[in-house]
Amino acid sequence: MSLSFEFATATRIIFGNLSVEKLPDLIASMGNNILLVTGKNTDRAEEVLSKIQKRDCRIAIFSVESEPTTTIIDEGINLARVEGCNLVVGLGGGSVIDSAKAIAAMVPNKGELLDYLEVIGQGKALVDDPLPCIAVPTTSGTGAEVTKNSVIKSVEHNVKVSLRSSKMYPDVALVDPVLTHSMSPELTASTGVDALTHLLETFVSNQANPFVDLLCREGMERISTSLERAYKNGEDAKARENMSMASMLGGMALANVKLGAVHGFAGPMGGMFSVAHGAVCACLLPPVMEVNIKAIKEQNEVERLKKYDVLAKILTGDRIAHAEDAIGWVNALIKDLNIPSLSKFGLTTADFPELIKKAKVSSSMKGNPVLLDDGKLMTILEKSL
Amino acid sequence: MSLSFEFATATRIIFGNLSVEKLPDLIASMGNNILLVTGKNTDRAEEVLSKIQKRDCRIAIFSVESEPTTTIIDEGINLARVEGCNLVVGLGGGSVIDSAKAIAAMVPNKGELLDYLEVIGQGKALVDDPLPCIAVPTTSGTGAEVTKNSVIKSVEHNVKVSLRSSKMYPDVALVDPVLTHSMSPELTASTGVDALTHLLETFVSNQANPFVDLLCREGMERISTSLERAYKNGEDAKARENMSMASMLGGMALANVKLGAVHGFAGPMGGMFSVAHGAVCACLLPPVMEVNIKAIKEQNEVERLKKYDVLAKILTGDRIAHAEDAIGWVNALIKDLNIPSLSKFGLTTADFPELIKKAKVSSSMKGNPVLLDDGKLMTILEKSL
Ligand SMILES: [Fe+2]
Ligand SMILES: [Fe+2]
Repeated sequence: MSLSFEFATATRIIFGNLSVEKLPDLIASMGNNILLVTGKNTDRAEEVLSKIQKRDCRIAIFSVESEPTTTIIDEGINLARVEGCNLVVGLGGGSVIDSAKAIAAMVPNKGELLDYLEVIGQGKALVDDPLPCIAVPTTSGTGAEVTKNSVIKSVEHNVKVSLRSSKMYPDVALVDPVLTHSMSPELTASTGVDALTHLLETFVSNQANPFVDLLCREGMERISTSLERAYKNGEDAKARENMSMASMLGGMALANVKLGAVHGFAGPMGGMFSVAHGAVCACLLPPVMEVNIKAIKEQNEVERLKKYDVLAKILTGDRIAHAEDAIGWVNALIKDLNIPSLSKFGLTTADFPELIKKAKVSSSMKGNPVLLDDGKLMTILEKSL
Repeated sequence: MSLSFEFATATRIIFGNLSVEKLPDLIASMGNNILLVTGKNTDRAEEVLSKIQKRDCRIAIFSVESEPTTTIIDEGINLARVEGCNLVVGLGGGSVIDSAKAIAAMVPNKGELLDYLEVIGQGKALVDDPLPCIAVPTTSGTGAEVTKNSVIKSVEHNVKVSLRSSKMYPDVALVDPVLTHSMSPELTASTGVDALTHLLETFVSNQANPFVDLLCREGMERISTSLERAYKNGEDAKARENMSMASMLGGMALANVKLGAVHGFAGPMGGMFSVAHGAVCACLLPPVMEVNIKAIKEQNEVERLKKYDVLAKILTGDRIAHAEDAIGWVNALIKDLNIPSLSKFGLTTADFPELIKKAKVSSSMKGNPVLLDDGKLMTILEKSL
């Protein structure tokens, strides 16, 4: 693997338990007319609001109650423009942070959101710099606080696509693991597997590089010791800390290296079915690993197989583990986390041809370590049910 | 060690052999009136110039022939202002890149350079954003391409101080290991030991954090296999690549975590004697390690001692190595690299009291893993001769 790469991330990262206490000062230092994007539950936002209101700041709250759609983002853009906001803060899960980033990006830029979207739009480049943006995650999965894209669903086109720009890295990623303590076991499981999948897919990606590998190894190690612990006991501060760190490392990795077949399928599936992204990853990850490892062995790609050997050792904690052992470990994890299979969400074999067609043209599929033909893609879907 | 930290680095990193070929396009995409800061030898700058001149760009070359002084920086600022430059490119060693960063920072800011300098000036904060800046290192040592300060010598005050601001991270760090192939063995040795010292001091720093540790471990591992190789054969591309990567990792680390006693002494020494910064580090590193490890053992600081055990294993490649083995390894390295002792540069015991006084108030000393009293600081200097 050549030591040649590009790397970028959020301008400034603040990480640590209770670091959210720095948020009011931070906000006040960056703007005085704030759009605070948050989720269904606005309690945390109200708390920040109460601390901010003693200062010379105006805040408008924008509550995002589902995965962001083009309609939701347009509403947010309008609100920010009407209010004349000069700072956007996203306080919530991946959907909230993606919304905040997209709104911050679009407010100063002319034209329609659709013009700037990949796949369904013209994928126009952002001309003007986004509004300053602070991302404060309350889950540990997407790593959206350190990525440069927002995943947005077009209800009209029935697909999830990205608004993507190297201008879209948040100016500050404020990661406070304590904010994740209140996640339900179910949410802990699905978001945690999403983070694991980011680390695993970028580590074996055909775009992998030694700098990102470093982040992936560290992230996978933290997940191997902590995801089950966090699932069983949400108040396990050490496990939560490790998961927040791993999620951020996964975000850093995926912003700089393309993912693989799991995310290649997850995009279209998320557009077609109403199912948590992490649960989709959980069902696809073992069969993708299996099919990839088999193909890599057939093609005698020694270096690529070695990467799977390395991650098997990291995940199992067993120094003599080999590629296949990683599949067993992931399967056991998903079973322990009680993540249901895709058939539970309504996926049937009738959907396979469309899924394969859409997955093949996805951006993520370009990162898969080996080229997978239609037969291999079909095998993955069959095994994922 | 708590998982609580802040992290920032250059906005965008481009790393790889021959990546300098991307420089003309990169420059043209970021500005059209460029100040190109370079070293004594302007051949490389002329080459870039010839490739740029076919475009709609103006370039002024500013050649920095020594370590930057306040006078040199003022000249550069004036030139950039007179020419109306909108981009600063630093192509050279640490002195050149530090000069480029300082000029980029000062051009849009009112008042005198001295107002903004630490220690000897008022340490005023930069108000306006610096000009965009691209840093292209031709040595592998300082990591200045990813740091937020410039070290500047005041001839008047006989001291080296920093211009420092989180606005000063270069917008792009373009690291092409091939540019370092032509370094002399002597320069390879001294800059390489500087990089090693950055990694080692930040790894054991009392401000250390697990994210920076990750970078340090990777950097130390690369130096352990490659510094001697690069010293013996400058064309060893793999070794050069590892040294460029390690140097950058060291810069990322030191921009986010304070260093220690080696750099605490190196600042004042650099102000008082005309000696390569890396050579100073080489002479101080083993005695600082020795005194630190002894003090840590006396104070029974188990966690801090463990860090030295870990770095000893990394440097020696020996899984059962302990803290002290690292000292032996560093001593052997410095001997193999033929770095002369400090007495050769004119340092005598008569200078010790002043050095101790200045080192104690330095910013780096605050990162040292244990508090060193005057007696211990004296021991370090005695052993360094
Ligand atoms: Fe994902
Ligand atoms: Fe240094």
